Amino acid sequence: MATAIFDYYRANHDRYLEGLTNLLKIPSISTLPEHKPDIRRAVESLANEFREMGMKNVEIIEGQANQHPLLYAEHLEASGKPTVLLYGHYDVQPADPLEEWISPPFEPTVRNDNIYARGAVDDKGQTYLLVKAVEGFLKTEGKLPINIKFLIEGEEEVGGEHIEQYVAAHPDRLKADAALICDTEMFAPDLPTITTGLRGLVYTEIEARGAAHDLHSGSYGGAAPNPFQALAEIITSLKGPDGKIRIPGFYKRVKKPGAKELEAWKRLPFKEKEFLQKEVGATALIGEKGFSVLERLWARPTLEVHGLRGGFTGEGAKTVIPGVATAKISMRLVPEMDPKEVIRQYTAHVKKSTPKGIKTAVRVISQAPASMVSTESRWIAAAAEAMEQVFRKKTVYIRSGGSIPIVGVFQKSLRIPSVMMGFGLPDDNLHAPNEKFHLPNFYRGIEAVGRYLELLGQ
Amino acid sequence: MATAIFDYYRANHDRYLEGLTNLLKIPSISTLPEHKPDIRRAVESLANEFREMGMKNVEIIEGQANQHPLLYAEHLEASGKPTVLLYGHYDVQPADPLEEWISPPFEPTVRNDNIYARGAVDDKGQTYLLVKAVEGFLKTEGKLPINIKFLIEGEEEVGGEHIEQYVAAHPDRLKADAALICDTEMFAPDLPTITTGLRGLVYTEIEARGAAHDLHSGSYGGAAPNPFQALAEIITSLKGPDGKIRIPGFYKRVKKPGAKELEAWKRLPFKEKEFLQKEVGATALIGEKGFSVLERLWARPTLEVHGLRGGFTGEGAKTVIPGVATAKISMRLVPEMDPKEVIRQYTAHVKKSTPKGIKTAVRVISQAPASMVSTESRWIAAAAEAMEQVFRKKTVYIRSGGSIPIVGVFQKSLRIPSVMMGFGLPDDNLHAPNEKFHLPNFYRGIEAVGRYLELLGQ
Repeated sequence: MATAIFDYYRANHDRYLEGLTNLLKIPSISTLPEHKPDIRRAVESLANEFREMGMKNVEIIEGQANQHPLLYAEHLEASGKPTVLLYGHYDVQPADPLEEWISPPFEPTVRNDNIYARGAVDDKGQTYLLVKAVEGFLKTEGKLPINIKFLIEGEEEVGGEHIEQYVAAHPDRLKADAALICDTEMFAPDLPTITTGLRGLVYTEIEARGAAHDLHSGSYGGAAPNPFQALAEIITSLKGPDGKIRIPGFYKRVKKPGAKELEAWKRLPFKEKEFLQKEVGATALIGEKGFSVLERLWARPTLEVHGLRGGFTGEGAKTVIPGVATAKISMRLVPEMDPKEVIRQYTAHVKKSTPKGIKTAVRVISQAPASMVSTESRWIAAAAEAMEQVFRKKTVYIRSGGSIPIVGVFQKSLRIPSVMMGFGLPDDNLHAPNEKFHLPNFYRGIEAVGRYLELLGQ
Repeated sequence: MATAIFDYYRANHDRYLEGLTNLLKIPSISTLPEHKPDIRRAVESLANEFREMGMKNVEIIEGQANQHPLLYAEHLEASGKPTVLLYGHYDVQPADPLEEWISPPFEPTVRNDNIYARGAVDDKGQTYLLVKAVEGFLKTEGKLPINIKFLIEGEEEVGGEHIEQYVAAHPDRLKADAALICDTEMFAPDLPTITTGLRGLVYTEIEARGAAHDLHSGSYGGAAPNPFQALAEIITSLKGPDGKIRIPGFYKRVKKPGAKELEAWKRLPFKEKEFLQKEVGATALIGEKGFSVLERLWARPTLEVHGLRGGFTGEGAKTVIPGVATAKISMRLVPEMDPKEVIRQYTAHVKKSTPKGIKTAVRVISQAPASMVSTESRWIAAAAEAMEQVFRKKTVYIRSGGSIPIVGVFQKSLRIPSVMMGFGLPDDNLHAPNEKFHLPNFYRGIEAVGRYLELLGQ
């Protein structure tokens, strides 16, 4: 490791903390229109950092009227070296319920080596460490070990489409060998972690129509079709009590993870009882027999009902048979499952399971395939080595049951793999009150990213 | 029929219409607090009518602060004759959507022999005809053929408890031989109709709890219990796709209606196709095999889901597994089913059908047994005869699939049967825009009730 730059990183903790604090003070909540000026302040503040540290072609990219800007910056002077696209987001979740915050969400406060603020870890802290890792090289050596492009967005927390549209429209400008995304977690404190797989998602609505209008259950109950009864029948026909999805052909492309990967998962510090009690808080975990919890979460598809709309849900006793009711249902997909094929199978099965008297229509709200990066890839191998050197522990590979849409976007439009180095902790309270970032991880994150760039440049 | 009084009824149509119009102008919407003064005006207007026509002990009975007043009046000078309790309600449903009314809901307008206004048929028109029928005797003969007690409420449309509490607390004051309720419909235009049976109701909520809080379906889907999936399993375990309720013992006390009653239903002018197309508007009717539609609606119990609360039902794609979800489910009961027994069976079956990882709790919101009056009863026989004489057609006996709670209240607290003479028509738009009352039925209603009182006095 080049000593000079790491000495520089370590000498600048106070300045990094101050910079992060200033960024966290800006309530750049992307979902609330009244915070539009804060969105602007946040993106301009990062643009200024880029300009000051010597990045080139720094550009705030405006979208359509209702879209939040992207921020682009590049440094492409490492001829013959690889190019990495660094991704982060400057927007944050809303902060309510405010009364549960120990210190106000936009007055960053350090307690016990943690900085508490909305966006501390998700994702301002993890975006800022990318910036500071790159800055270190420019400040000490005046150049970078590889070529770097930054693309920072302001709509991650609202699922905005600006970045997807921009990436699709500008594959040449964004051309790179790999992407580095700092927006995930470490599996346990001090355990350097790379996320190598994400489940995909197909999110749907099933609309079930019975009568032409709402009916009184006294006058019509027993002869009129009830869309809720139909949806209950459809839901149980989609997934059985054993957790198995009953859609014909659904599991056709599902593959068991390799023996090595499964072996590695078994060695992870995961305690099922603790997960049940501390994270879930139910009386029991459920799911498919014959698969471990991590396998069920990371490597098995699932189908979940999120809500049912229609009829009467207020206080008291309204005896309505709704004319129409809607179920919001999603499926998580694993690698090699094709969202389009799943949608076909699902739609056909919903139709087949629709009882007499009811008409159903399936609407697909979003779809994205699962993604996987091989642990054999040089981009992953170097990331693992960099983290290992900084954290002084063997890097573990995990998957995530969720989806990070940008990974799919980069894969689809730029044909590049995404390296997901994460420095958050499981108890960092993402999307919740008292969000925090563990400061040693912030500083180690800067070092790990710096070392990663260095390794890629060798 | 005493000619004098019927001549009087027929000579006073204009005055009856004027009186009804004035009553209908008062927007006595019981569910909207801003209409509290109108509730007061409506009850006082009826109280004045009672005083002017010579009723005794006219009393506006105040309830608790949030309750609407009852109106009591009596005339008990027919020594040795029966006493009948006349029931109606002066409150009305809200009028929205206002834009769908052809004439404003509280500016009563006559078109094609119908008076259009909110409350025209439900129940001001049908309450007012009771008042006018009684008034006719006092104006022409100065006395009544039987003893009469009026009890008019102002909370029928909100399911208020004032009347139930009052009846339970004053059985002596309200002592009567039978009740006469004018709040139902004729089976078809010109077809004099008495409703002899009502289904009972058990209305419940099932709360299903899984995780201690909402979870992200990416991070937890496949291992965390989903309360909606559980509710779907419970709902399908409660009622099968064949419309049969699967709760053990549920049908134990259910009896087939007598051959004579079923025979009579077959003769009713009911066309299944028309019912499906005009009233329901679905692709097909559903329900238990081997029972006619009217039997399914009137003489078979049913179970209906009214709504499911929890999770996410907005636009877009929130991937939440709710910690808790609630289903609103009711059962309609037929005669001889015991609500308490049904609740026990239902609760036990819900518990038994609750899947692993989920805790369920059943809350009973309301319960009332079914009610039946024998067509052999003298109170019914006289009512049928009176209607027949006025309408010049044979009176039909029907049941209703709904519940009229006051019938149960009179049965329970006063131990008296309720005679349900109805003068509404199926297309009178109860609870909907353009509610109307067919004026010939208003006038014939006055005559039929007058004749009924006369027959009971003989």
